Amino acid sequence: MEAAARVIARRGVRGLRVEELAAEASVSTALIYYHFKDRAGILRATLEFINDRAGRYTTERLADGPPLTPRGELEQTLLLEFQDTPEVRENSTAWGELRASAVFDPDLREDLARATLGWVQEVAELVGRVRPMNGAAVLAGSAERLTAMVEGLSVRWLSGSLPLDHARELMSGAIDSELERLHH
Amino acid sequence: MEAAARVIARRGVRGLRVEELAAEASVSTALIYYHFKDRAGILRATLEFINDRAGRYTTERLADGPPLTPRGELEQTLLLEFQDTPEVRENSTAWGELRASAVFDPDLREDLARATLGWVQEVAELVGRVRPMNGAAVLAGSAERLTAMVEGLSVRWLSGSLPLDHARELMSGAIDSELERLHH
Repeated sequence: MEAAARVIARRGVRGLRVEELAAEASVSTALIYYHFKDRAGILRATLEFINDRAGRYTTERLADGPPLTPRGELEQTLLLEFQDTPEVRENSTAWGELRASAVFDPDLREDLARATLGWVQEVAELVGRVRPMNGAAVLAGSAERLTAMVEGLSVRWLSGSLPLDHARELMSGAIDSELERLHH
Repeated sequence: MEAAARVIARRGVRGLRVEELAAEASVSTALIYYHFKDRAGILRATLEFINDRAGRYTTERLADGPPLTPRGELEQTLLLEFQDTPEVRENSTAWGELRASAVFDPDLREDLARATLGWVQEVAELVGRVRPMNGAAVLAGSAERLTAMVEGLSVRWLSGSLPLDHARELMSGAIDSELERLHH
């Protein structure tokens, strides 16, 4: 899965060749087909892998540090998506590619919609800890906007239209705005 | 240019073949190379074309309708990006593809950054008409967030993770939040 994320981040989903993936993972193409059945299976498993890994470098990272306020936890979870490290850059690139490919590839859509929903629910829970006086639909709406903002700013950063520091500032501003609009 | 936008919206930037484009436009491949020099030239011209066309179906559309308040003009400009018409769907798909491809293709980045800046400036001007008591940097920040939100929500819509009506509601909420945070 690490090899698949690397290859997708290097060449895109549409540039993914099973031969290159096999070489990157130092296994045979037969083994890859045995495990994942087909290209769609590879993409599905990679989506799950990068989703879990994003969970590790955002929420789980927080568990190692000093305790944060609920607001600090929300901010760090979203801002840790904007780091100039190989892991985050690769993860964001691969996620953006799976998102962009799903526009053309209906096979990817269901899994991507499910992964997106899981992410929205996690962020809605964090927002709810900061602003507990709000209903589930309101919190979900805020989380949908915040996660769509992460995606929108990330692809601008990765495509060279937005410096990383400025992306982080804009993201912080988006969090402030969302929290401001909710019942205190 | 219309043919190029259609082909990109159908197959993606990475699926763009000059032969298919020539057939779609009913011209020879030689004529296409004569006009655009190379693939990068085709992509650059298509980017400009879809950018101008988005200008037509958003801001220029407004000129035909009844006069709007500055706030109504801002809202309509951003919400007209979310319409289930072939033109808007094709334009959004092609724009998203050029954005996603620029992550892998440095040749596209400069033109895309310039087009993005132009769009941000237009939206900043509209925001400034609604909230004139704010400085240029603050208005630019709001416009960057609002346009990144259009991109983030559009690709979720086009990739089947978000129904169109809900995307429009989320976009309206983002506009409300941005206007709320600025000096009145």
